[in-house]
Amino acid sequence: MDFFFNPKAVAVVGATPNPFKGGCSILKNLMAGYQGGIYPINPRYDKIEGLPAFPSVSAVDGPVDLAIIFVPAKATPGAVEDCIRKGVSGIIIESGGFAETGTEGRMQQQRVLDMARGAGIRLWGPNCMGLVDAVHGRVFSFMDPSALQAGLVPGNVSLVVQSGMLSAGFLVDIMTHGIMGISKVCSVGNKMDVDECDLVPWLLRDPDTAVIGLYLETITDGRRFINLCRGSVKPIVVLKGGKSARGAQAAMSHTASLAGNRRIVSGALAQAGVIEACDFKQMMDLCRSLSTVPAKASDLKGGVAILTFSGGAGIVSSDFLEDMGLTVADFADDTKKNLQAVFPDWMPVANPVDLWPAMEKNAATDVDIYSEAMKAVLADPAVDAVLLHVFVGNFRIRINLPDLAQQSRAAGKPVFIWLLGRREEAYQFQMAAREHGVPVFQELYRAVDCLRTVMNQKKHPSAVIAAGETGEPSPLSPVLKNVLDSAAGPLDEFISKKILNAYGVPTVEEVMADNVDECLQATARIGYPVVMKGLQAGDVHKTELGLVYLDIRNKSTATKTFRTITRKMGGRGRVLIQKHVRGHVELILGLLRDHQFGPCVMIGLGGILAEVFQDAVFAMAPLNHQEALVLTDRLQGQKLLDGFRGSPPVNRDELARILTALGNIGLAHPRIQEIDINPLIITAEGAVAVDATIIVR
Amino acid sequence: MDFFFNPKAVAVVGATPNPFKGGCSILKNLMAGYQGGIYPINPRYDKIEGLPAFPSVSAVDGPVDLAIIFVPAKATPGAVEDCIRKGVSGIIIESGGFAETGTEGRMQQQRVLDMARGAGIRLWGPNCMGLVDAVHGRVFSFMDPSALQAGLVPGNVSLVVQSGMLSAGFLVDIMTHGIMGISKVCSVGNKMDVDECDLVPWLLRDPDTAVIGLYLETITDGRRFINLCRGSVKPIVVLKGGKSARGAQAAMSHTASLAGNRRIVSGALAQAGVIEACDFKQMMDLCRSLSTVPAKASDLKGGVAILTFSGGAGIVSSDFLEDMGLTVADFADDTKKNLQAVFPDWMPVANPVDLWPAMEKNAATDVDIYSEAMKAVLADPAVDAVLLHVFVGNFRIRINLPDLAQQSRAAGKPVFIWLLGRREEAYQFQMAAREHGVPVFQELYRAVDCLRTVMNQKKHPSAVIAAGETGEPSPLSPVLKNVLDSAAGPLDEFISKKILNAYGVPTVEEVMADNVDECLQATARIGYPVVMKGLQAGDVHKTELGLVYLDIRNKSTATKTFRTITRKMGGRGRVLIQKHVRGHVELILGLLRDHQFGPCVMIGLGGILAEVFQDAVFAMAPLNHQEALVLTDRLQGQKLLDGFRGSPPVNRDELARILTALGNIGLAHPRIQEIDINPLIITAEGAVAVDATIIVR
Repeated sequence: MDFFFNPKAVAVVGATPNPFKGGCSILKNLMAGYQGGIYPINPRYDKIEGLPAFPSVSAVDGPVDLAIIFVPAKATPGAVEDCIRKGVSGIIIESGGFAETGTEGRMQQQRVLDMARGAGIRLWGPNCMGLVDAVHGRVFSFMDPSALQAGLVPGNVSLVVQSGMLSAGFLVDIMTHGIMGISKVCSVGNKMDVDECDLVPWLLRDPDTAVIGLYLETITDGRRFINLCRGSVKPIVVLKGGKSARGAQAAMSHTASLAGNRRIVSGALAQAGVIEACDFKQMMDLCRSLSTVPAKASDLKGGVAILTFSGGAGIVSSDFLEDMGLTVADFADDTKKNLQAVFPDWMPVANPVDLWPAMEKNAATDVDIYSEAMKAVLADPAVDAVLLHVFVGNFRIRINLPDLAQQSRAAGKPVFIWLLGRREEAYQFQMAAREHGVPVFQELYRAVDCLRTVMNQKKHPSAVIAAGETGEPSPLSPVLKNVLDSAAGPLDEFISKKILNAYGVPTVEEVMADNVDECLQATARIGYPVVMKGLQAGDVHKTELGLVYLDIRNKSTATKTFRTITRKMGGRGRVLIQKHVRGHVELILGLLRDHQFGPCVMIGLGGILAEVFQDAVFAMAPLNHQEALVLTDRLQGQKLLDGFRGSPPVNRDELARILTALGNIGLAHPRIQEIDINPLIITAEGAVAVDATIIVR
Repeated sequence: MDFFFNPKAVAVVGATPNPFKGGCSILKNLMAGYQGGIYPINPRYDKIEGLPAFPSVSAVDGPVDLAIIFVPAKATPGAVEDCIRKGVSGIIIESGGFAETGTEGRMQQQRVLDMARGAGIRLWGPNCMGLVDAVHGRVFSFMDPSALQAGLVPGNVSLVVQSGMLSAGFLVDIMTHGIMGISKVCSVGNKMDVDECDLVPWLLRDPDTAVIGLYLETITDGRRFINLCRGSVKPIVVLKGGKSARGAQAAMSHTASLAGNRRIVSGALAQAGVIEACDFKQMMDLCRSLSTVPAKASDLKGGVAILTFSGGAGIVSSDFLEDMGLTVADFADDTKKNLQAVFPDWMPVANPVDLWPAMEKNAATDVDIYSEAMKAVLADPAVDAVLLHVFVGNFRIRINLPDLAQQSRAAGKPVFIWLLGRREEAYQFQMAAREHGVPVFQELYRAVDCLRTVMNQKKHPSAVIAAGETGEPSPLSPVLKNVLDSAAGPLDEFISKKILNAYGVPTVEEVMADNVDECLQATARIGYPVVMKGLQAGDVHKTELGLVYLDIRNKSTATKTFRTITRKMGGRGRVLIQKHVRGHVELILGLLRDHQFGPCVMIGLGGILAEVFQDAVFAMAPLNHQEALVLTDRLQGQKLLDGFRGSPPVNRDELARILTALGNIGLAHPRIQEIDINPLIITAEGAVAVDATIIVR
């Protein structure tokens, strides 16, 4: 991948002197900052923009490791062939007209891909804006050179953007607004070869990149991507486009209907410690905030000091901090005493600190109130960060930004600034703050949102678990194995639970009965009350068909019920007798094989609560025990598991073991599409799967 | 109130030529735009800023209806006395040093207020920035004249801000960023006399005001304020500061503990059709959005057309629309056909519309793609609004803003713009868009949030119900009336339910028994199973004390239980026998007397769900039937009321009647502080209050 970022020489296929064409822009952008060899390729010219032009890449007499192609789609196979002849290492195809335009384009794209793969060449694009490296001043892109005339602002945030227009648009917006510095912007377009799973590892190793932000519409290999993120020590922020439901999908299990696209993506990202963004600018704000506070160095809890010029803004800041799980730090007595020195006597100092009375009191002196206040609160052990409000455009307010930044760095406690004021002064202040590594926000809510994210960022990489690495031999009997290998569609609950049980999932005591005698033997063994169900092959609607009878308390009812069920089934099916389990909590657990993330496990509230609150969370299998425990914490109604009204708390370790087992079943048996345990009933003795369905393809 | 906004002549008490003093700024600001008489008051000068100065207001020889006072707090009583002598109508005290500084200041404030009230003079402030009227160029404020040197941008949004620094800060920020035009900014400070309940009615009548935005830390008279908002046809946006819990308050009822400050405020605002903002800038964005689309004219449903320069931004816009309950409009065939004309053949046109391929196809023509696309989608009956994405800084994209604005107005369908691009061009575009009445946003999420708010705004004023106007004579017997008049603390459940029942709340069938004979007579009449409870005066912890026995099924258990309970109570208390009610839903209903909003009713999920989800909503009493119905809709778990697994849906009309009755009880009996109906059980026959406590002060 290195030849894309640090090529020794670049050929521009489709270079032209026509300033209205992308091929001209690519050349101009290269010449503006790239230090290696630049070879315009166009048989119609001898020179372009003062550089000698060549009829083909293979005609170049020096070595070329990267080619940027900007010719119509139909001309790309020829250009790629030419590159293969030359022996380039990588090609960026920036032109469109490929898979995004329909069947013909898709075939063209595949053709080009096959050619490159055959020659061992990596392909970037097509239909993309290429690559910008602001640290080294390299623009490998057809974006309008005039859009970048103000220059690139180097920084340590790298972006991967699956949308050409957005990558260019945001780059121009960010650069001209001076909001943050950038390391790389990688516009990956149709991702026919190079994708996020190639770029993330490269950026994780890149010393110029501290934070990675990705806008993705598809995740090519969800499992690999999540594992890459799991192992990252650099913060990764992802905005996933296309999360809304794409029409109703036919779903056979509760697990599938509770999933949606969104819950699985969000679950997998959360599991890997990825920060999920919900809007473009918020993503940029999160990235630049994270880039100022190294995760490793931060041992921050949630205490925040608020320094403001307005009591009202202090009040609203307190509201936001509490909303987001941070705390308005309780100042130590020393802190209060130190602050009080610059305040009028009538004003008892507390957090939030309204600096205005102190500024008025000291108007005639040269005491720097902001600096003094920072010093006092940063020294307080209860303060882990400072939220500073700044108004620019009033000359009575003095802010010594370098001093504040230095104090913050020295204390190892971030300072985030909410900025209000006159446009031009605000712009200048924001630019200066960026240079000093202090994040500035125009929206108070966003400032607190970003501060929260920085303070809660993961401190260590998560364990990376390779898929399928359960290490255990299959616990299934040959009969059950054979069922999984040969069946298709939903397995009945008896077989489903046998399989689950073999993997360690506790299941209800139950017996199949073929006649009344067997039925009564079963009830005698299990003990009343029992539940009786009629099972028919391939049918998952036994309740709706009236084939489920609860709370059967004696022989005569059992006998009558057996006959009723067999009559209703008309001889096609068998009767299942099981212990009637009463518990205090009902859960749904499940597994779903997702096309992007593979087997994902789910836990949700069961019974009527599943319908009312749709409270369910997902994670990608395999889960280790700790991840499974964290998953149960993510349930909105997780308090239900804590025990109430005399019921004991749910054994979360047992739940975690069941979730891990579910994931392992999914990994071991690729034919399993869905598993539904509904309900898993929690009793005083533990969890019991009372009904379950495994759906096999 | 008119003399504050349109005074004939203004005296400035504390006027001074010293440019570092507020008294000088007030004078300069007045002279810059106010057309009436201006009288500097300062005994030390003959002339200030070229105007003749007077030693006192009463020494002015012309009429003066408004005085602005900016002298130290201790000098204000003298200044007010002087104003009273002159016979002014209103005084704005802008100086601080009053209630915000502690006890002494609070006394000073009260003294000044008493003087003014005695003389029939209205007081505005103190500790405030006064009043700015951008439409008439009037600045009655000590804010720095240089901060407004770029001029005021007139508009139709008026703001009421309970924070001096914020009002000035936002005014400067808004004006210099060109984000929106302003009608009035009213900085009300300590609100000793003039408050939101004076200003809202004035602004509702003000022809220059279309939208009112308020930042409030306290709501002086919540009931009056809510009723004012209810009757408004102009959109009102409120940001309430100080919503976070201020330490744990001792709460005797579930209703009180579920309330928090936030839920009551939010409930009352929602009930009155007020739009609640959560951040300062979001509040401004909501106000300016609402100011462009008149509520009355709008008969908009949720269909939105997305016109974008980026497929990716289109995808994310779709996500946002779905999140917020709007819909990505399904285009009619005609629309698609009209759009297709400007698009390349390979691209089938659908919503979101990515305009880029059309721009590329028509690059050599003078077809205005944005204009053509707008025409096509505005003509579509499924489209109620357009979300337009604009990138500035690429000269291949042409936007004819006046044309787009005109098309939107003609169609009566709002167009909201998300803007990305180069800083200076973006600023120019935003200014132009403001002048054409098209809202522009830099954050896509905010654009959709504001569009949703505009499309969902209330079309008609809500019914205004004067407090206490139930019109009914009290249905309470003299005995019950006497209990309410004389008791203090919690009433036992028997009495509580008697009172509730008198007001039409259905309660469980129950009898008090003093001995075993009475007990058995009661069980015989009620029918088994019964519940038996030991009631002790003033005690609300009968469950925790083990005085509640459920599911008693026969005489012998009843007898034994009666004896157990009486023994446990040691003779102090009585035994209550009631029907054991089984139902399918448990709710909590309640009443809470709030210090700002008076009696407020609550409905929430009961049982364990109350603890797990804390799902409860509030509204201010009295509620009419419709409001009570809407309240039940606001429950997060309201689907629970729809019936499930064979249970019939809850009778929402009956719930609404009970909620209305609860409110009426609170209005009729001011000594009632709290009412808890916990649980209200829903059975097939209807709702039954099974346990209830009324707390009297």
